[in-house]
Amino acid sequence: MSSSEFDLIDRYFSGLNSSDKTVICGIGDDAAVLDISAEHFLLTSVDTLISDVHFMADTDPADIAYKSLAVNISDIAAMGGTARWATLALTMPEAGHDWLQAFAKGFSEIAERYKVSLVGGDTTQGPLAVTIQIMGTVSRGQSIRRNKAQAGDLIYVSGSLGSAGLAYQATLDKSLRQYVSESCTQRLHRPEPRVELGKQLNHFAHAAIDISDGLVSDLGHLLKASELGAEVELDKIPFCPELMELDKQQRWSIALAAGDDYELCFTLTQASEAEMQRQLEELDYPVTCIGKITDSSGIVWLDEKGEKVELQLEGYQHF
Amino acid sequence: MSSSEFDLIDRYFSGLNSSDKTVICGIGDDAAVLDISAEHFLLTSVDTLISDVHFMADTDPADIAYKSLAVNISDIAAMGGTARWATLALTMPEAGHDWLQAFAKGFSEIAERYKVSLVGGDTTQGPLAVTIQIMGTVSRGQSIRRNKAQAGDLIYVSGSLGSAGLAYQATLDKSLRQYVSESCTQRLHRPEPRVELGKQLNHFAHAAIDISDGLVSDLGHLLKASELGAEVELDKIPFCPELMELDKQQRWSIALAAGDDYELCFTLTQASEAEMQRQLEELDYPVTCIGKITDSSGIVWLDEKGEKVELQLEGYQHF
Repeated sequence: MSSSEFDLIDRYFSGLNSSDKTVICGIGDDAAVLDISAEHFLLTSVDTLISDVHFMADTDPADIAYKSLAVNISDIAAMGGTARWATLALTMPEAGHDWLQAFAKGFSEIAERYKVSLVGGDTTQGPLAVTIQIMGTVSRGQSIRRNKAQAGDLIYVSGSLGSAGLAYQATLDKSLRQYVSESCTQRLHRPEPRVELGKQLNHFAHAAIDISDGLVSDLGHLLKASELGAEVELDKIPFCPELMELDKQQRWSIALAAGDDYELCFTLTQASEAEMQRQLEELDYPVTCIGKITDSSGIVWLDEKGEKVELQLEGYQHF
Repeated sequence: MSSSEFDLIDRYFSGLNSSDKTVICGIGDDAAVLDISAEHFLLTSVDTLISDVHFMADTDPADIAYKSLAVNISDIAAMGGTARWATLALTMPEAGHDWLQAFAKGFSEIAERYKVSLVGGDTTQGPLAVTIQIMGTVSRGQSIRRNKAQAGDLIYVSGSLGSAGLAYQATLDKSLRQYVSESCTQRLHRPEPRVELGKQLNHFAHAAIDISDGLVSDLGHLLKASELGAEVELDKIPFCPELMELDKQQRWSIALAAGDDYELCFTLTQASEAEMQRQLEELDYPVTCIGKITDSSGIVWLDEKGEKVELQLEGYQHF
């Protein structure tokens, strides 16, 4: 759920559930946390992807389906949970056989990979829009929230940033196309939610969020929810290799603000760092420390000399 | 979920979850039944309401919101469950303050009445569409399915049929407007899901479905799922009083095929009838026996002399 979307829903519907004790966490995190049983919390999140907003109308329907479910699974991953079930509300201009078959194929691929069952659906006629609601579970009390960062925490991000953003920006700016690798395009169309990492994180992370709108926005959400600030060292950010040929300002803009990474950003105490490294060994997926949580507010960006940098991100805000 | 919608999703996505033992009932009933805990099953259903398809674009936004949540709560009622939580994916041409405020007011009214908490949301820009996913719970093994009717069962419907259908048809056919009462309009815009009745039903009903597309369609779904048939006595159907001024053929058409009733249709053995009557006494909501389940297929409609009637419903199929 992006910031503006959240704000709008929150502004008009706040106070609606204040007395419901089963709502451990409602609107305002990657997923809601609901008290449904003695064993589990239920996690749930909804996202709509609209043609020409979240994807180009001519995108392969298999990729549209794959990404639509992937971004929802990513919300569950960011909560430290396991995605279990999904419903699909599909609005289409027409029920074309080829289109639907390709869409179902892409959906099935990712659903099978992450063991998510489709348990409900609705189809309506109209401009192409894909609304998926994901449901997952997490052991009681084990969900990772975005509002639990603590001053002094280390800030980590998983994987590398900017591949998908570069592929997307290259559709708008031809001069970037020479830098786009197959891997960038793959990450734009078929992001991989970091489910296994998320499940490990609930042993030691204080806070986590998935990076959908870009690190600037999403770390920003985590800080706002936690009422804290951060210092981030730009040269520690794991930029995707394709961005290293661009100048710094452009690299930063794409990697930090173009979005669509679906990596996880999380915080933990320095004392937990060694334990985390051990736990993640088996997973064999890179995580990188990029800075620390401070008791101020907002993000201070530092260059390799430790000096403050003003990021200029205009024109790269996430669509 | 209407029949054609179900068919489309089912045709392209069938076989996706065949090995998931937590899916007690997937696509194809009013709601999915999921094994989430030792105490409860999780019930979930999704419905999209589209402007100029499910409601007129100029409908009061408070009514759009009310109805959108009501029809989802009705799906949970038909399963014998308790609606608990909902998510809202709202696509709007523009984020108009007055529209949103009215929509939120209507949503809050019904959410508070039925104690449903809004736990997630997404807003996107585009032609008006409201997708709500409802989640509810039911004690393990107590959900009422549409495929469990048995030959010899009595068929009951709750309340009266045709009010909302008459109000809707009158928007298309001016000659009907003189018959439309305030109550008809209210039932079209603000249907009341039969939640308390649904909860009682799980003590004795074999099968149940909510009447959204009209009794012809919805009893048809129940029979198809149960692989059985029915005999229905037309003069036992609880027509709304407004329809009694119309000729029989028109009355039948509107009451049985115009839809939007959101009453429950359910079946039970003759032996359970007295117990049901006792249980429902406190509820003080009428239920009427309209016929019985047979071991044939399809619905046989009988007149007051017990003779077969061919219903002519063309032109009254639910939008």
